[in-house]
Amino acid sequence: MAMPFEARYRVYWHHTDGAGIAHFSRILAIVEQAEEDFYASKGLLHVHGRLPRREVYASFLYPLRRGDEVLVRIWADEVRRRAVRYRFEILNLTAGRKAAEGHVVAVCVDSEGGELKAVECPQEFVEAWKEA
Amino acid sequence: MAMPFEARYRVYWHHTDGAGIAHFSRILAIVEQAEEDFYASKGLLHVHGRLPRREVYASFLYPLRRGDEVLVRIWADEVRRRAVRYRFEILNLTAGRKAAEGHVVAVCVDSEGGELKAVECPQEFVEAWKEA
Amino acid sequence: MAMPFEARYRVYWHHTDGAGIAHFSRILAIVEQAEEDFYASKGLLHVHGRLPRREVYASFLYPLRRGDEVLVRIWADEVRRRAVRYRFEILNLTAGRKAAEGHVVAVCVDSEGGELKAVECPQEFVEAWKEA
Amino acid sequence: MAMPFEARYRVYWHHTDGAGIAHFSRILAIVEQAEEDFYASKGLLHVHGRLPRREVYASFLYPLRRGDEVLVRIWADEVRRRAVRYRFEILNLTAGRKAAEGHVVAVCVDSEGGELKAVECPQEFVEAWKEA
Repeated sequence: MAMPFEARYRVYWHHTDGAGIAHFSRILAIVEQAEEDFYASKGLLHVHGRLPRREVYASFLYPLRRGDEVLVRIWADEVRRRAVRYRFEILNLTAGRKAAEGHVVAVCVDSEGGELKAVECPQEFVEAWKEA
Repeated sequence: MAMPFEARYRVYWHHTDGAGIAHFSRILAIVEQAEEDFYASKGLLHVHGRLPRREVYASFLYPLRRGDEVLVRIWADEVRRRAVRYRFEILNLTAGRKAAEGHVVAVCVDSEGGELKAVECPQEFVEAWKEA
Repeated sequence: MAMPFEARYRVYWHHTDGAGIAHFSRILAIVEQAEEDFYASKGLLHVHGRLPRREVYASFLYPLRRGDEVLVRIWADEVRRRAVRYRFEILNLTAGRKAAEGHVVAVCVDSEGGELKAVECPQEFVEAWKEA
Repeated sequence: MAMPFEARYRVYWHHTDGAGIAHFSRILAIVEQAEEDFYASKGLLHVHGRLPRREVYASFLYPLRRGDEVLVRIWADEVRRRAVRYRFEILNLTAGRKAAEGHVVAVCVDSEGGELKAVECPQEFVEAWKEA
């Protein structure tokens, strides 16, 4: 039975915008941190540089403020040969509220002459996601 | 008949990541720039600070590289009393390709005691979007 | 005898630029994270939002790459009534090299009518820095 | 007689932090935009990706707020065979105040086996800076 990968982060000042809450674009960067920490935990961090996002969706439910502790949870939604679709949720542990949820589709690519070309993902990458 | 709002930007080095292409989170920040320039063109820039994103969706179709000229086009998809849903597309003018498309739902809020509370959007804001 | 405050961070993909190394502006944001974690350790995180930088200097000695573990060390250089000047160094623990060093001058301010006005720093803030 | 290169930018929401002013790290990214636009104006944009910063100094004099128009002015301070030191100033045109000033040392490098090695800068790069 697959288990979501979880990682904890703190919200810093440089994440906030003029409304005093974390800017949505930086919340999405935090989701990516969790994805990287998942790969790092599997010895697959090198794969991440060839994984451009094909699709990103996020629903923001509750603000993150500077100093808040967050838990990011990610798990595979669909693992294909050339792409993975994973879901995420962000819990604002400080406020005790779900802050955001959504999904990401990342594609395995090779760059040939500057063009990004979808290729088959490494087998260990596919296996790692199937367990998450 | 409504017309999309258009704005042009250049992709800079600080937008890129280790793959040599603009990071998805910074592409989304460029979409927000177009939204702000739309408000600025209507004298409504002050409203933007009370418009947290409720939902963001993006599909990335073609990379943006440093130096590329981009055209961002935004137009209202659904204008409600307390929120607007707008669609965007990003054209990579340098490559002659559509780079991304998606939508954003932004909610009009007031902050009371730190909580964000959805409120009715200013009338001129609603009008501006109905024309876009 | 004062002791530097130390905090550890990981370099993530969104820190990198097209050269595959952390962008200087994001390295400086990591220094600020250490400053915030120092305040948090002293119960003074709320002060940080009224501490605009007056001066920042950094010398970059060795690159930070995605996945690298870094140690940021900060210590007071000069503690004045209305400002603190602290020094920092960043060690790339993964490479075993000093990555950067420099200093920051941050000023205690109050905002009146939108203008930032230098004011005396809170006493506990001054004390905390004198110990670091 | 050399002339500073000038470029104009607007401050956007994603530049601001919780204090409602542009975050210092993003102000520095705007300085880099001016450097890139200078290279672009000389047909030298490709050089920029091999120009890591060796040193950055900034003094912040007046805040930049969302919507402010800024003028960035850069000019060579010292042009060496393997590095350039340029000075910058940022004028907040909206407020009619100087917002920041400082300098940047950028080094021409080649990457060999992942190490950055200082090399001689391209001749046209040296010439371009000597005129700025």
